[in-house]
Amino acid sequence: MAAYSVNHAELSSPPNFADRLAAKVLEKKSQVCVGLDPQIGLIPPFLLARQSGDEGSLGLDPSGVAEAFEEFSLAIIEAVEPHAVAIKLQLACFEAYGPAGIGIMWQLAQACARAGLLVIADGKRGDVGPSAALYSAAYLGIPPAAPPGTSPAQLEEHPEETPVLAGFDAMTVNPLFGEDGVRPFLDDCGRYGKGIFFLVRTSNPGGAQLQDLKLADGGLWHEHLARLVNRWGAGLTGNCGYSSAGAVVGATRPEAIGRLRRMMPAAVFLLPGYGAQGAGAADVREAFDAEGLGGLVSASRSIIYAGNGRGFAVEAAAAAERMKKEVWGAVGQQS
Amino acid sequence: MAAYSVNHAELSSPPNFADRLAAKVLEKKSQVCVGLDPQIGLIPPFLLARQSGDEGSLGLDPSGVAEAFEEFSLAIIEAVEPHAVAIKLQLACFEAYGPAGIGIMWQLAQACARAGLLVIADGKRGDVGPSAALYSAAYLGIPPAAPPGTSPAQLEEHPEETPVLAGFDAMTVNPLFGEDGVRPFLDDCGRYGKGIFFLVRTSNPGGAQLQDLKLADGGLWHEHLARLVNRWGAGLTGNCGYSSAGAVVGATRPEAIGRLRRMMPAAVFLLPGYGAQGAGAADVREAFDAEGLGGLVSASRSIIYAGNGRGFAVEAAAAAERMKKEVWGAVGQQS
Repeated sequence: MAAYSVNHAELSSPPNFADRLAAKVLEKKSQVCVGLDPQIGLIPPFLLARQSGDEGSLGLDPSGVAEAFEEFSLAIIEAVEPHAVAIKLQLACFEAYGPAGIGIMWQLAQACARAGLLVIADGKRGDVGPSAALYSAAYLGIPPAAPPGTSPAQLEEHPEETPVLAGFDAMTVNPLFGEDGVRPFLDDCGRYGKGIFFLVRTSNPGGAQLQDLKLADGGLWHEHLARLVNRWGAGLTGNCGYSSAGAVVGATRPEAIGRLRRMMPAAVFLLPGYGAQGAGAADVREAFDAEGLGGLVSASRSIIYAGNGRGFAVEAAAAAERMKKEVWGAVGQQS
Repeated sequence: MAAYSVNHAELSSPPNFADRLAAKVLEKKSQVCVGLDPQIGLIPPFLLARQSGDEGSLGLDPSGVAEAFEEFSLAIIEAVEPHAVAIKLQLACFEAYGPAGIGIMWQLAQACARAGLLVIADGKRGDVGPSAALYSAAYLGIPPAAPPGTSPAQLEEHPEETPVLAGFDAMTVNPLFGEDGVRPFLDDCGRYGKGIFFLVRTSNPGGAQLQDLKLADGGLWHEHLARLVNRWGAGLTGNCGYSSAGAVVGATRPEAIGRLRRMMPAAVFLLPGYGAQGAGAADVREAFDAEGLGGLVSASRSIIYAGNGRGFAVEAAAAAERMKKEVWGAVGQQS
C-alpha cells in the first residue's frame, strides 16, 4: 500500500475495461475467470502445517493463516495464468483475517497484474454515495490522501506524496442503494478505465426470494434492475461494443441468461456457478456473441481445489485448461 | 488481531444482543448511536498536518491517514461516551486505506468496548452462504483458524491457539441474497450474543428506485423484505421482547417508520439520517415503544464534525448530549 506514482498522462485517456477484457479473451481464446477463495478447511493441509510448524498443531493466528493463503494463491495464479483471463478474489476470505488478510489480498492483486491477469475484487460492496465513493476509491480509484482540491500538477511536484491508484481492474457492486449509491463506481470506471459487475441475479437458491419477486408492471424485480444496469452502463461502452459496467448473472440460471442478455445487450456478464455449483458450458452460451465476447465464466472450487496434495497447482492448471476448452468450444467463434 | 482466549463457559449462554442494548438505553436514557465516519476532507486539518509533520504538506500515505483517523476517532469516542449507547464504524472509511486502515478500525472497536459502548460494523456485507459465513466470522464470530472439527475442549488445551472472537457487537447486512445468504449471520447472533441490522429501507434518495417497487401482490418490495426480516429474526428474541436481528430504516422516511414497525414488531430499528441528512426527533418517534425501546438513532456528521478546530471533541460531546435529550424527550418514557 506504499504510495507510488500515478501516470497522469495515461490516466487522462485510460483504456476502457471492456476493451481490455475483450482483447485478452480473443488473445487467449478463454473466457475463464478463476475465483480465488482460499479457506482453511479446503486448501492443502500441508500448507497449514508448514505455517504452524507442527503437523499436530490445532490452529494458526491470523498472520499464519494469511501466509498459508498467500503461498496457496501465488501457486494457483501462476498455474492458471495460461488458461484464464481474470482472477476473482473473494474479499470475505481475506477480510476474515483482519489487517494480515487484507495485506495478503493486496499483494495477490499485484501478483495477478504482474502475471497479465485482470483482477476483480469480489466484495459486493454497496452503500450511500459518500461511502460508496470510498469503496470505489479503495478498489478502483485513488483513496483520498490529500486535501480536497489538490491538483494533479501540485501532486506532480511532490511525487513522494502522489496517492496510490488501487490495484484492481474491476469489482462487484451491490446495486440496492440505487443511482446515487452506484454513481461513484461508474465515475471511477470512466476516470480510470476500471470495470464493475452489478449483482443482477445471483447463483444461490435464496436469490429468488427477493430478486425474482413479480412486479405490478408484470416483470420481475431483477428484470427492472437489469434495465437500470443497462442505462447506468450506457456511458461506459468501449470500441468492442460492450460496457465497463457489467452484470453478475448466475450460470446456474440458464433460462435467465438469454432473457437478461436481451435486456442488457452491452453488459459483460460475470457468470459464477460453473463447475462445483453445477452449471456447464452449454448453460452460459446465450451470454456470448458470435466472437465469443460478452461474458466471463467464473469457477472457484472446481479449479483451485481440484487437488489438495502437493500437486494441487498442477491439478488446478489442468482443470482450468479443461474449462477453457469446454467454454470456448461451446460459446467461442460461433457463426 | 492477536489471538486471545475465548471464555467458552460464557459463550455457552451468551447474553442476547437486544437485551444488552435495551439495558444500556434505559441506563443511559439515550438511543443515540454515533456514526464514526472519519474522512480526509472533514476531520480537523490540524490532525492531518500533525501526521504529515508539515502544515504545507499535500498528502499522506495510508498509514499517515490511518493515524490521523485514530487520533480523531479516539477523541470522539471518549467525548460522546456519556451520551451515546453505541458507535457505528463506517467500514468504507477505513477499508479505503488498506491494512493500515483496517488495523486502526479493529483498535477503535476495542476502544469502544473499553468505553462500555456497543460497537457496530457498518459494512452492509452480503454474499452467498459460504462467503457470508466468513463475513459473519470476521465481525461477529470466530474466523476459522483450526482444522474443521476442532473441539472447544481441544482448544482449551492450547490456549495460545484459541481463535479470536471478533470484537464487534453487531453489523449491518445486505439481505439481497436471501435466506441462505443471511443464515450464517443469524446463527452467529445466537451463538455469540451478537446482533445484525438488515438493510430494509435506506435513507438515500436512490433507495426508492429498487426498494419501493410495487409488487404484483400489492405491497412494496421493501415491505416483502420487512416480513422476511421479521421471520428471520423470530429465533433471536430476547427477554426485552426485541430480536437481535434488527432493521436499517432511514430516519429520513418518517412515513415508512410506523408502517414498517407494524410489519417488524420485534425488530430493533437502526435509524440513520438524523441531523445532517435532515431527520429530527419527531420523525423517528414511531419506531419506539412507551419505554423508549425499539430503536437506535444514528447521526454522524452533525456530531463528529460539529467542530473542526482544536475543540472538536468538546463540540462533538455537546452535539451528542443535545441529540440524546432531543430523542429521549420525543420518544423516551412516553405514557
